[in-house]
Amino acid sequence: MNTRQAEFFFDVGSPASYLAWTQLPAICAAAGAELLLRPMLLGAVFQASGNASPITVPAKGRYIMRDFQRYARRYGVPLLINPHFPINTLVLMRGAAGLQREQPERLDAYLRCVFEAIWVHGLNMNDPAEVARVLAVAGLDAAALLALANADATKAALRASTDEAVARGVFGAPSIFVGGELFFGQDRLDWVREALAG
Amino acid sequence: MNTRQAEFFFDVGSPASYLAWTQLPAICAAAGAELLLRPMLLGAVFQASGNASPITVPAKGRYIMRDFQRYARRYGVPLLINPHFPINTLVLMRGAAGLQREQPERLDAYLRCVFEAIWVHGLNMNDPAEVARVLAVAGLDAAALLALANADATKAALRASTDEAVARGVFGAPSIFVGGELFFGQDRLDWVREALAG
Repeated sequence: MNTRQAEFFFDVGSPASYLAWTQLPAICAAAGAELLLRPMLLGAVFQASGNASPITVPAKGRYIMRDFQRYARRYGVPLLINPHFPINTLVLMRGAAGLQREQPERLDAYLRCVFEAIWVHGLNMNDPAEVARVLAVAGLDAAALLALANADATKAALRASTDEAVARGVFGAPSIFVGGELFFGQDRLDWVREALAG
Repeated sequence: MNTRQAEFFFDVGSPASYLAWTQLPAICAAAGAELLLRPMLLGAVFQASGNASPITVPAKGRYIMRDFQRYARRYGVPLLINPHFPINTLVLMRGAAGLQREQPERLDAYLRCVFEAIWVHGLNMNDPAEVARVLAVAGLDAAALLALANADATKAALRASTDEAVARGVFGAPSIFVGGELFFGQDRLDWVREALAG
């Protein structure tokens, strides 16, 4: 078991994934550990595990958004609860899986662009035209990305990482593995830090 | 809003409630704050809010029990996942509500006895004979407690506190209010500490 590595299973449509994504690079850097980005499709994880988004329980949905805002303040990062939430992230996550396979050097820029469009700027990333505009602003080629997202190998890659997550016990996002141990939620980053040090 | 007071809504059948209960007295004492015990019936909270126990999702149930064990080690308290879980806590929580109304000086001893029977000793508190034995060992009169639990005023008291919890946004246990803010889960005790200091 490699405790010098954090595997970060995430979906860009999850505010908790966004919060974890803002913190994990520094946590891993401080520990001298590698951060492995593992795109997965949260909707498929919910379906396979029998879990559901917290927002399906109204009181829990209201609470958890306040809770995320508290953590955002603690981390010192912006978080705007997206008015178009929930977002269908299938194409967006295929884009991430495709870049990771084909042009890994562009993955970080893509994720920053997409995470911030959704959770900082509150944009409607359900709308392909808005997605294309946002990607263009970030200097990414939307048409090329869409083609990559729709490639069979890309679809298979996202399906494989999602299946792998479920097989390893994942039921929600973010899910972080360190040395074989699963830590679920952006509120378990102190445990991730501890595991990386261990 | 009183930030010198923590209202602790709990159910003895919830391992997270047990963990929070082991920590809150010291947290409140350190803050010079009052700990208000608020018995509620978690099953009724789930029903009213549309929420469900994490154990209804198998992968989440397996994860959360490991997570609770991690926190137990961090807190330095024993935690044995009860083999008879889930426990029907209706009579046990009525006992707590009844004592709080009629003999509040006995509530702490009762809760210690019941929480530890379930989450330290792994006893079958679904079995009235076992409950009677456990209460007797703790010097509590099981027959008198059962009569108190079954009194109409007791039933109404537990129902009222459960309804109040739901009306205030509670969807699970433990739920802790400080100064009008809800903190859900034994993993939010650092936030409770911060709110009590604020």
